[in-house]
Amino acid sequence: MNFKEIQKLFEKDLEYVNEEIKKSLDSPISFIGKVASYLIESGGKRFRPLVLVLSSRAFGYTDSRMFSIASTLEFIHTATLLHDDVVDYAELRRGQPTANILWGNEATVLVGDFLLARSFLKLVQDGDLEILDCVSKATTKMAEGEILQLLKTNEPKTTEEEYLDVVYSKTAVLISAAAEIGAILGGGNREEKIRMREFGKNLGIAFQIVDDTIDYLVDDQTMGKTRGQDFYDGKVTLPFIYAYSMADNNEKIYLEELFLKDEKSKDDFEKIFDHLSRVNAFEESFKRAKEFARLAKENVDFIKEPYREYLLALVDYTIERKL
Amino acid sequence: MNFKEIQKLFEKDLEYVNEEIKKSLDSPISFIGKVASYLIESGGKRFRPLVLVLSSRAFGYTDSRMFSIASTLEFIHTATLLHDDVVDYAELRRGQPTANILWGNEATVLVGDFLLARSFLKLVQDGDLEILDCVSKATTKMAEGEILQLLKTNEPKTTEEEYLDVVYSKTAVLISAAAEIGAILGGGNREEKIRMREFGKNLGIAFQIVDDTIDYLVDDQTMGKTRGQDFYDGKVTLPFIYAYSMADNNEKIYLEELFLKDEKSKDDFEKIFDHLSRVNAFEESFKRAKEFARLAKENVDFIKEPYREYLLALVDYTIERKL
Repeated sequence: MNFKEIQKLFEKDLEYVNEEIKKSLDSPISFIGKVASYLIESGGKRFRPLVLVLSSRAFGYTDSRMFSIASTLEFIHTATLLHDDVVDYAELRRGQPTANILWGNEATVLVGDFLLARSFLKLVQDGDLEILDCVSKATTKMAEGEILQLLKTNEPKTTEEEYLDVVYSKTAVLISAAAEIGAILGGGNREEKIRMREFGKNLGIAFQIVDDTIDYLVDDQTMGKTRGQDFYDGKVTLPFIYAYSMADNNEKIYLEELFLKDEKSKDDFEKIFDHLSRVNAFEESFKRAKEFARLAKENVDFIKEPYREYLLALVDYTIERKL
Repeated sequence: MNFKEIQKLFEKDLEYVNEEIKKSLDSPISFIGKVASYLIESGGKRFRPLVLVLSSRAFGYTDSRMFSIASTLEFIHTATLLHDDVVDYAELRRGQPTANILWGNEATVLVGDFLLARSFLKLVQDGDLEILDCVSKATTKMAEGEILQLLKTNEPKTTEEEYLDVVYSKTAVLISAAAEIGAILGGGNREEKIRMREFGKNLGIAFQIVDDTIDYLVDDQTMGKTRGQDFYDGKVTLPFIYAYSMADNNEKIYLEELFLKDEKSKDDFEKIFDHLSRVNAFEESFKRAKEFARLAKENVDFIKEPYREYLLALVDYTIERKL
């Protein structure tokens, strides 16, 4: 079972989620729908909704309410992408010009705010305080993670622990919420909720480590963004952290100088890339991602088939999409 | 009874609100507290918390829970100010450099997101779905209002109706929520909740019309921002709308040309100002604000003394702070 097969198997469910997304974008101000759906319909994988749906069904939950709740997670995710692109001055996402390039920073910030507020309204109207608690904690943590990442920009001394803190907050916490909500909807007990939460957390961390690693490796066309973007943006990710931790004093100075240059060239990127390759930093990063993937798999060993198999396939997907 | 006396009378309550604000700013990332408290402590009037406290007490509610809820409204208000300043490229607020000038757009956007998420978390933990519904509707509406305002920028043909729609959404709706929440907390009936909501709405509209009118009138030092800022930003407000609606064809062209100039000078502002003065556009705007103030007063004629007097004093304050 691979990711594409799972997407196929739950195609109907994901269509219901898409319908809920469209419904929530309905505003007297049509511009909001235009900006938001530009990004929402640009080929996102609906990863968070899929985690929520699989987790819900694994716990025997079948009510269509899950699609409505799943759509709010995609909204929150989209809101953070919009704000991220403003913060990063990003020009490309998924191979398309970003919303901030097309409509300006102002509209992009405000449409992000709308999506965030609209998600909460939808969850409030759904009326489950446990789910609201889970999502509002996740959203608060995400904002903290984004701020922490900003503060750690151009900090070559960032530690693995600090990096993992950012990765957990900015990415894994919402995937963790998606997995936990399935257990809440399906009436899982306390222990089961915690295990699903841990599953989502480990899955999300593995996902982001791989994302950060292939940022160094994959050419522009495959990813729909610039290769080495994190390096150019001064974002310290795991391959760099490994290389830096293994470096002697001279190498540390060399890495710092490259990393902190004001205007980084493609040549600077190639230098960093060569160094990181030579010390096996990419392999080490993938290895670390696999450890989190293994933990995620352990977390769901209590889930019955076929849902265990589906969840394991999600885990494999996160670490196999190297290219 | 004037505004200062009311602030004095409820000083203790507002201190409790401030304590709640400080508590919620507690994050492992101290930078968040620094940015947020810079704006929160820069001399805001705590207008929304005050409305909530007065309304709660008017309905006989005395529990300290009201301070916690009041603090979330100040948070949401602060979040929108942070994002507004990014959207407007503002450099001064309340006479101080804005957060975006001091810490950059990136941090300002993200700290705004944190405040918004943190407010929802606090309200969720408070656990009242009716209040959550009221606040999340208001927050969604506010985002719509900001977007509508952005779309109406540099649109000299903006109508009074469109202007009032923006004013209601971006300002009045949160004041309306503050007033309604008091009735909810104090166990008001359906009719009373609607009247308090209407009170807050009319109060908020009066407040914003006066704000927009004195933007043309008052010098930089008194307001802590540039006189004519809205004009320079291409924001169409009520005085301009009145002048435009009274203008003949030649005057319309004259007003449009001034309003749509790429780089507006102080001289352009003086020309617009002279025209608006001559046709009594400022007086007309104040008159309109007073009509909303009168409606607000009618809305609370069922409230018992002394709270009726306090609420009326808030209304008078909004229309008397001309200078």
